[in-house]
Amino acid sequence: MSKPSVPNRSATPATPRAEILIIGNEILSGKVADEHAAFLCREFRSLGVDVRHVAVLPDDVDAIAEAVRIAWDRADLIVTTGGVGPTHDDVTLAGIAKGLRRPLVRHPTLEGLVRDVYGVSGNPHVNRLADVPEGAELLVAEGMRVPVIAVDKLYVFPGVPEVFRRKFHAIKMRFRTEPFHVKVIYLRVGEELVAGLLFDVAREFPDLALGSYPAVDRPAYRTKITLESKDAAYLHSAFAYVMARLPAEAVVEVDREPTR
Amino acid sequence: MSKPSVPNRSATPATPRAEILIIGNEILSGKVADEHAAFLCREFRSLGVDVRHVAVLPDDVDAIAEAVRIAWDRADLIVTTGGVGPTHDDVTLAGIAKGLRRPLVRHPTLEGLVRDVYGVSGNPHVNRLADVPEGAELLVAEGMRVPVIAVDKLYVFPGVPEVFRRKFHAIKMRFRTEPFHVKVIYLRVGEELVAGLLFDVAREFPDLALGSYPAVDRPAYRTKITLESKDAAYLHSAFAYVMARLPAEAVVEVDREPTR
Repeated sequence: MSKPSVPNRSATPATPRAEILIIGNEILSGKVADEHAAFLCREFRSLGVDVRHVAVLPDDVDAIAEAVRIAWDRADLIVTTGGVGPTHDDVTLAGIAKGLRRPLVRHPTLEGLVRDVYGVSGNPHVNRLADVPEGAELLVAEGMRVPVIAVDKLYVFPGVPEVFRRKFHAIKMRFRTEPFHVKVIYLRVGEELVAGLLFDVAREFPDLALGSYPAVDRPAYRTKITLESKDAAYLHSAFAYVMARLPAEAVVEVDREPTR
Repeated sequence: MSKPSVPNRSATPATPRAEILIIGNEILSGKVADEHAAFLCREFRSLGVDVRHVAVLPDDVDAIAEAVRIAWDRADLIVTTGGVGPTHDDVTLAGIAKGLRRPLVRHPTLEGLVRDVYGVSGNPHVNRLADVPEGAELLVAEGMRVPVIAVDKLYVFPGVPEVFRRKFHAIKMRFRTEPFHVKVIYLRVGEELVAGLLFDVAREFPDLALGSYPAVDRPAYRTKITLESKDAAYLHSAFAYVMARLPAEAVVEVDREPTR
């Protein structure tokens, strides 16, 4: 096999880039272990979306505003979780409004829905739940009592796990694009021995997502190599390139994790 | 009890602010659920350190450089995990160097140690493990084969969980400051009914860390209130202020989670 003189490019159009903002002092102070980020990374991957950044932020208007501004400039899609209840530490929508330099305005439809859920009238802290950044839309779907608030490409979810997951599943199909294709190669040699080959692969296939992971305390293999692309033919070429250059005795298994 | 006209201030000096950078495509693509952030948030809390930001970043020099620059301006202490092996996707030290605008230089002591561990001489990919941002120090402690790399206030840890935790425990006492004190109040009413009181508490005790969390699917209570400070007397005053204003029948338990 001769080396291509010009690197191969994938024929697949650019993948949407998502960023995730997890909001809550209880996570940063170690009281609660966040599970939303791992859930969203798995879900977005299976939807064909590339998560490029996750941030965990305190319940602080300025910290949220700064993170929203930074993410807004980089991402096609932003999800926030947490900080949307009625108490003093629920400042996510105020932070988003400040970050986007939009006023917080009371949404009449949301005001009615919130009143239905809480069954309280005239409690100013409950009414505050209907304040959204100007221009926000409400996404309604099966199985939600209160809609998801969307501000352009930014989607606001609650922090309570059951409610968050139900709402995400209810609207997630709007995020779907072409799927990723993956090949995994398990090796019985340490990654330092294939480092040179992997540099070559990364150079020849610049659009490939190529990972190398040392295995610790696993007798069946020492290194796991992952190749990914949305372009199946491109992935196949890269996989063939790698397999042709690996010593046959180095490969334990392909695609199926060896257990022994 | 009369309301103080001037907000109470805590007598405790400022708490060190930490930021955590978790580096690895395998986390963002949902292949591996990160556990380092939760571990570090718990550990730092028990050391008296306030974690203010966690970011999960791709194996990308520019993304790491940008995150390092942003964190450097805000934090007293930065920890990175991941991206320090010998392959093409191990770019953490290059990202830190770029972020801090320092050259990567080969560290002679580290070069010798790396050679001892890998037992390979002349492999350029192994030698690359000895390249560090200029001015980096090596922290040596019991139980580590390879020292922790520190660049001023930034500490570089590997991503492999067993190795990462062993190294963190080996050097963590250098981060310790005065401990946080905590009071927890469990309520049988929804948080919307104490939202007004909590706004008052946050105003009267601005240095208090005050949290409110709705409980879902827990029959024994509906709301959990947390009060925290490094100043035990200040915490005591705030706790007394809250308890004096809560209807006695609203409180289920203090400090011990009710199970029924």
